[in-house]
Amino acid sequence: MGDDRYRVVKSEVKFEGEIISLFVDEVEMPWGDICEREYVRHKGAVGIVALTDENEVYLVKQYRHPTGEMLLEIPAGKLDGKEDPLGCAIRELKEETGSVCREMVKLAEFYTTPGYSDEFFHLYLATGLEVGAVELEDDEEQELEVLKVSLNEAFEMISAGKIRDGKTIAGLALAEKLLKGKM
Amino acid sequence: MGDDRYRVVKSEVKFEGEIISLFVDEVEMPWGDICEREYVRHKGAVGIVALTDENEVYLVKQYRHPTGEMLLEIPAGKLDGKEDPLGCAIRELKEETGSVCREMVKLAEFYTTPGYSDEFFHLYLATGLEVGAVELEDDEEQELEVLKVSLNEAFEMISAGKIRDGKTIAGLALAEKLLKGKM
Repeated sequence: MGDDRYRVVKSEVKFEGEIISLFVDEVEMPWGDICEREYVRHKGAVGIVALTDENEVYLVKQYRHPTGEMLLEIPAGKLDGKEDPLGCAIRELKEETGSVCREMVKLAEFYTTPGYSDEFFHLYLATGLEVGAVELEDDEEQELEVLKVSLNEAFEMISAGKIRDGKTIAGLALAEKLLKGKM
Repeated sequence: MGDDRYRVVKSEVKFEGEIISLFVDEVEMPWGDICEREYVRHKGAVGIVALTDENEVYLVKQYRHPTGEMLLEIPAGKLDGKEDPLGCAIRELKEETGSVCREMVKLAEFYTTPGYSDEFFHLYLATGLEVGAVELEDDEEQELEVLKVSLNEAFEMISAGKIRDGKTIAGLALAEKLLKGKM
């Protein structure tokens, strides 16, 4: 982190929320201009492509208010404070699907939208699932519907516009590549 | 768009910027609870995996203030008002790389971060590139460095954490899948 050639001249917090805060910074560029940058800060998050022994992946259907839609996504969640991403992935998989896994490998890590957010995302592939190891909490059941589809079905859903979540698309494509031994 | 079972009771604009605005809404859930949702609105954007006849893809290196880092990304940009995504992709490819293309196909479309943003992203694959068709503007050259790498190199860069931008990772993985005729 940190590129000293770009110097923050002024930084103002415009909003502080539970999940995101919004900043407007004035940045001095290496070529002398002062530019304004508006962006959000976010604690970071994880997502898990969870592959069952029947070669199906979990998808979670939930209402996403910013989009006004019910979306299908891989199990995912925000980092809880200084939580370790791997620990968070294990927790989210358990909470959203009721499964535990024997193996969890990192597929990639990335900024979700570096133009206006510092959110950093950790993407995992979970295999060797013990389905139904944990009982789902009532509260979770009310908001989340959990599905299982084959990888092929998932890619058809991407093509048909039925899966339209960035991390889910990246995760499925990387998982397939890894599973086919090409990464 | 629109799921009537989730009713906006109150909506407040907390910040209105050039690129993003921030809202806090109170939403009545189907089970009766009122929940607060904080999120940003964004005009939407496009990204282009641009494949040369030598099977290399363009990567653009630029400073991304929210992350404090120089990032490597596929050519991309925000929709300009009511601009058509395909037209925007053709424009951005030209502006950032100086290339025009004979073919541009859609790889996927998705919300980048549906938990706290309505940004909708259009991902394309451009082939049949005429490299150097357009002269790059000086202003662009000051902020952007343009590289070309093979798809294999790009995947090594993802594994090594040298490419860490979500849309770029999704785009490269989907482009490879499509190019190998599996989509």
